[in-house]
Amino acid sequence: MHVLVVGGNGFIGSHIVDALLRANTQVSVLDVCSERYRSPLLDVRYFLGSFWDTGALEDSLLHKPDVVIHLANSSLSVGATGLPHSDLEDLRSSVTLFELCIKHGVKKIVFMSTGGKIYGVTDSLPIDESQPTNPLGSYAITKLAIEKYLLSLSYYFGISAVILRPSNPFGIRQSPTGVQGAIPIFAWRILHQEPITIWGDGSALRDYIDVRDVAKFCSMAATRECSGIFNLGSGVGVSTLELVDHLAETLQIAPIIQQEPARKFDVPAIILDSTRAKQQFNWNPEVNLSTGLIEVTAWLRELDKTESSSSSTSVLLAGSSA
Amino acid sequence: MHVLVVGGNGFIGSHIVDALLRANTQVSVLDVCSERYRSPLLDVRYFLGSFWDTGALEDSLLHKPDVVIHLANSSLSVGATGLPHSDLEDLRSSVTLFELCIKHGVKKIVFMSTGGKIYGVTDSLPIDESQPTNPLGSYAITKLAIEKYLLSLSYYFGISAVILRPSNPFGIRQSPTGVQGAIPIFAWRILHQEPITIWGDGSALRDYIDVRDVAKFCSMAATRECSGIFNLGSGVGVSTLELVDHLAETLQIAPIIQQEPARKFDVPAIILDSTRAKQQFNWNPEVNLSTGLIEVTAWLRELDKTESSSSSTSVLLAGSSA
Repeated sequence: MHVLVVGGNGFIGSHIVDALLRANTQVSVLDVCSERYRSPLLDVRYFLGSFWDTGALEDSLLHKPDVVIHLANSSLSVGATGLPHSDLEDLRSSVTLFELCIKHGVKKIVFMSTGGKIYGVTDSLPIDESQPTNPLGSYAITKLAIEKYLLSLSYYFGISAVILRPSNPFGIRQSPTGVQGAIPIFAWRILHQEPITIWGDGSALRDYIDVRDVAKFCSMAATRECSGIFNLGSGVGVSTLELVDHLAETLQIAPIIQQEPARKFDVPAIILDSTRAKQQFNWNPEVNLSTGLIEVTAWLRELDKTESSSSSTSVLLAGSSA
Repeated sequence: MHVLVVGGNGFIGSHIVDALLRANTQVSVLDVCSERYRSPLLDVRYFLGSFWDTGALEDSLLHKPDVVIHLANSSLSVGATGLPHSDLEDLRSSVTLFELCIKHGVKKIVFMSTGGKIYGVTDSLPIDESQPTNPLGSYAITKLAIEKYLLSLSYYFGISAVILRPSNPFGIRQSPTGVQGAIPIFAWRILHQEPITIWGDGSALRDYIDVRDVAKFCSMAATRECSGIFNLGSGVGVSTLELVDHLAETLQIAPIIQQEPARKFDVPAIILDSTRAKQQFNWNPEVNLSTGLIEVTAWLRELDKTESSSSSTSVLLAGSSA
């Protein structure tokens, strides 16, 4: 079986590629950038190009993948207002990608949506897939619209569709200098004795899941019989303050905390119910937070050494993936 | 109270303007076209311009409306595939409009969404507002995304938001030569002894509601205390064949029916539960289908006479409103 991973050189994408290779799948990747934190893999066929570029999409589909996993995402817009050009373009390009998949005889599309942002504010925790979607802000609303297009095309054309809604994936190769990912960003700041900004009282709950657990389910969903929407979370809520404590303890460095007024923007709690995923493949998150944090902080220390000894920080400061 | 109706010269918009004027509201209209089937009203201030044009939006908002009703819609895309430029632009422009409303101190936004297309295929009839939204095709998906943006901005900025989901509004001033609106299109074809195409066996159920009933609720929602999502339907399902019979009987002309294979595209049944709207303002649809059809067919006969006696059919063939 041949799987094309669109956005396969990004943080989550690179782990999905690993999981697919472990399952002896033929893998190709379309991404606008090379992988940032490791060398290209010998077993993967890479297509370098933006998924906004229909020609690049066509090229990567000419090699007849059976399944396409779509997690390309150019949006850095996590704010409250506006509909940035990048979100609109992601939406348009996602629909183009799906239609090209149908044209090229792809049998299944797996779309990486968001479980952390699609449900919005809710009192009903943990959240299962039947809960109403009340996305806040352009990033999450666009993800929902892409979900709806995929389901609509699946209904009309019979292509198999899987939608994954991960909570807050973390792990190695997640940039510590990006705008998303509390764990590497906080850890990097603690490591460099820079202040961590906490909005509100630090009680906001998030459901952190090791990216390899997400990748494992994604690989199974791509290669086995399966369709529909799946939450992927640990089911455990961890507050921002608890997370900082965890990280400080793991790093054995005291954090500098700066508290700022709460932003409406940050929902009070996200904890996902992943019963559906568990029932589908007897899947269960295998890496707990403590183990994951040890690995991430070790990777960040290593990255820090490499960066410090390097003459330039350009690798770290390069833009994010497709 | 001053209400700006964006798209106020279209079919539904023109009836909303009537309802607002009847309730002694100050009305202004932004639309890309003048009204098609009547002369401009003396009591309305008109701004001619596209809602895709930020300058036109700004101009119409400078006169400080308290409430904005948004029903501008350039999309003619009712097909299964693609994300036409017009839908993307409607989405972008709707978000721009909402943000400008906040900037200019508008207190409430009423958005005319779709109850006929937003729920998709469902067995659970009649459909209330808590049902899942499974829109099929670009038009309905874009409407849902616009709903989500409005709710998101309402959450962040506190602006009051009302979303209306009418079923299948019909009435005078609905174009008989457009792509939407079975009633005028069928009636016009019967009147001209042209064949009516029925996709499938003609059993698909639709919930036809007189546009004045929709307009009346919209006017109340705009001018009184109210927020949230409201279905607006008659609650009665009428099959395509029944509708054709009704029309033929009203016109006293035998229809020519052409049956074609069913399109997946057309959902089997839409009947809305409008309990929420009824409870809000003691609203109830007042015009039944038979009465409405008598009025619409009389209007179409009149239009036909005017058209026939006119040297050109350019009025009828002009593009639809913003």
